[in-house]
Amino acid sequence: MLPGVGVFGTGTTARVLVPLLKSEGFEVHALWGQSEEEASCLAEELNIPFHTSRSDDVLLHQEVDLVCIYIPPSMTRQIAVKALGIGKNVVCEKAATAVDSFKMVTAARYYPQLLSTMGNTLRFLPAFVAMHKLLLEGYVGEVQVCDVRVYGPSLLDESYGWTCEELMGGGGLHTVGSAIIDLLSFLTGARAHRVHGLLRTFVQQNNSIRGIRRVTSDDFCFFQMLMSGKRSSSGGVCCTVTLNFNMPGSFVHEVMVVGSAGRLIAKGTELYGQQNGKNEELLLGDNGWSGPEVKSMPMPQMQGLSSMVKALRLSFQAHEERRSWAHEPVAMAPTFEDGLYVQTVVEAIKRSSTSGEWASVDIMREEPDPNHNLCEALQRNKI
Amino acid sequence: MLPGVGVFGTGTTARVLVPLLKSEGFEVHALWGQSEEEASCLAEELNIPFHTSRSDDVLLHQEVDLVCIYIPPSMTRQIAVKALGIGKNVVCEKAATAVDSFKMVTAARYYPQLLSTMGNTLRFLPAFVAMHKLLLEGYVGEVQVCDVRVYGPSLLDESYGWTCEELMGGGGLHTVGSAIIDLLSFLTGARAHRVHGLLRTFVQQNNSIRGIRRVTSDDFCFFQMLMSGKRSSSGGVCCTVTLNFNMPGSFVHEVMVVGSAGRLIAKGTELYGQQNGKNEELLLGDNGWSGPEVKSMPMPQMQGLSSMVKALRLSFQAHEERRSWAHEPVAMAPTFEDGLYVQTVVEAIKRSSTSGEWASVDIMREEPDPNHNLCEALQRNKI
Repeated sequence: MLPGVGVFGTGTTARVLVPLLKSEGFEVHALWGQSEEEASCLAEELNIPFHTSRSDDVLLHQEVDLVCIYIPPSMTRQIAVKALGIGKNVVCEKAATAVDSFKMVTAARYYPQLLSTMGNTLRFLPAFVAMHKLLLEGYVGEVQVCDVRVYGPSLLDESYGWTCEELMGGGGLHTVGSAIIDLLSFLTGARAHRVHGLLRTFVQQNNSIRGIRRVTSDDFCFFQMLMSGKRSSSGGVCCTVTLNFNMPGSFVHEVMVVGSAGRLIAKGTELYGQQNGKNEELLLGDNGWSGPEVKSMPMPQMQGLSSMVKALRLSFQAHEERRSWAHEPVAMAPTFEDGLYVQTVVEAIKRSSTSGEWASVDIMREEPDPNHNLCEALQRNKI
Repeated sequence: MLPGVGVFGTGTTARVLVPLLKSEGFEVHALWGQSEEEASCLAEELNIPFHTSRSDDVLLHQEVDLVCIYIPPSMTRQIAVKALGIGKNVVCEKAATAVDSFKMVTAARYYPQLLSTMGNTLRFLPAFVAMHKLLLEGYVGEVQVCDVRVYGPSLLDESYGWTCEELMGGGGLHTVGSAIIDLLSFLTGARAHRVHGLLRTFVQQNNSIRGIRRVTSDDFCFFQMLMSGKRSSSGGVCCTVTLNFNMPGSFVHEVMVVGSAGRLIAKGTELYGQQNGKNEELLLGDNGWSGPEVKSMPMPQMQGLSSMVKALRLSFQAHEERRSWAHEPVAMAPTFEDGLYVQTVVEAIKRSSTSGEWASVDIMREEPDPNHNLCEALQRNKI
């Protein structure tokens, strides 16, 4: 039986998510917004019976058994951990720091019977599901190189906010790069152990962000990851990722995996492959998207989100009890542990960009001294 | 009046170059090959009256006033310097080391009346000539990012030779990367001051290279250059270059320049542009190549080579005396100084790949102790 849903957030994702949930048969009972006004506006627009700006009102809502959290990264951990504590299933976006991610992992480990997945929808995009399957079947042989590029217009909100602020989880690396880092570990079955990166903020001020305010989050980022895993070649996998958000009017989303016997390339939502000695083949075409088109949400994310909601439906439908869910349909969803890995890589890349050196990826195993994080942030600001 | 030409080399470039020279009206009088047999075979095929395996026989040939050198990098310096010393004009491929490049610069400075250009033909490709012009005119605004990728099949010769050997000047970085490094400095008017790179040799043995022999030259290379120059934005230009030669059956050659007001992308021999707020436009289409198609030479190099030969004709035609040439038609050709810069960047990228750190690009100003180079090579081998 499908659970009732409570949605946190009033941004683009929340706006797209609610109709998708409804079309799969979920009932959305409650909406949370940062201000009463935002919440009430969107609730009316999307026809949601209850809205609030107090998080507990959603978390404790009787009808809500699944909580979807799409809010600024710095607020995610608090809501996600609390939701699990109250016994609700959680789908949420990334947190702002590795420490926050670690706290979420701790909570998820404590309530293994609850669904707790990160909202990286790229894993669910049919092109990447097919790519994952073909890689497992050995289509490209031993994986050697992954080469990813995402180009698009600015990620900044119209007014000054967390998207402008690196420490709040803004920027191309944190917003888009983290989804790519997650995707690459899903596709290759390998994890980064060393990373190197360079972040730049080319546009520090624009028409709406000016005066004493400056953007600190990156609009250009490239990084390399040296990954190793069971399926990769003896030398490991080299990944190169280029993110550029100074390209208004364009959207490029290409993920290429090159191996000893061939290669696979996902361009947008299509998948192409070429095995050595053969011609390139279209393995998965554009399946004719019938849903809404939202300018600020690229098609791969949009279609991935739609597929994720379908998977959630299958997972919950499998059981009578409305809080119970089956593992298999959401088996490929990223866990909170994956979220911690991704956040750790993101922070290592930032460290590398500052130091100019390769940084190692060390996954947190115990919570650090709570003051340590503050010191680090202060130190970073000084640099 | 057009000078008589002597060609060094029997490889793909020499084979393509001779017909191009002839079709522009140059007479090719002499051909040098590493073995008498290679020289005689190709001379017969291309209908060249004189062939030899002794370099002096070409250099001292009465009819030869322009020497084109397309031989393994480790032999280039010796021939080029000698040719200038005898008073011949020189077009040549890159040398193997910065020390060799420096010796060539010294010779070129000593004979400024002689033509001495590096054979990087990409600068002459119409798409890049147009790109260069548009960048000067401010089409993209301030240049922020250059993003280049070249993918293709293996660069290795069929049998074991210098292409397999990193110290002999083999590998994707040295062969293809150096042309890109040169091109980017031509396009942006900026020079790299810091570089970071990663080189890999994924295929160390194949059907013809096996047993105790191993390939040491890179088949995958990723590097970044931080460049600065008069035309670049205050933060400088970030360049990312991805070279992958484990992709049989494909050829991708893309050079993208992104600036504050738009971007330019050369795909193969075509040029596209998009200014912010406008649609993408085809600025230069495929002009219908009527020359030969050679499988082992990609179209941008081929057409660039053809344009370079045309420029050489214009340069020499401008004067009556057959050794004299006009500067203007070949003004955009890379000089030996450019060759030294490129070689210095290549070596810095290799250093960075070994150390894992950013390496600074310091152009040689005086010749080092001749034993120093040997020591370095020995040390590198130890590592």
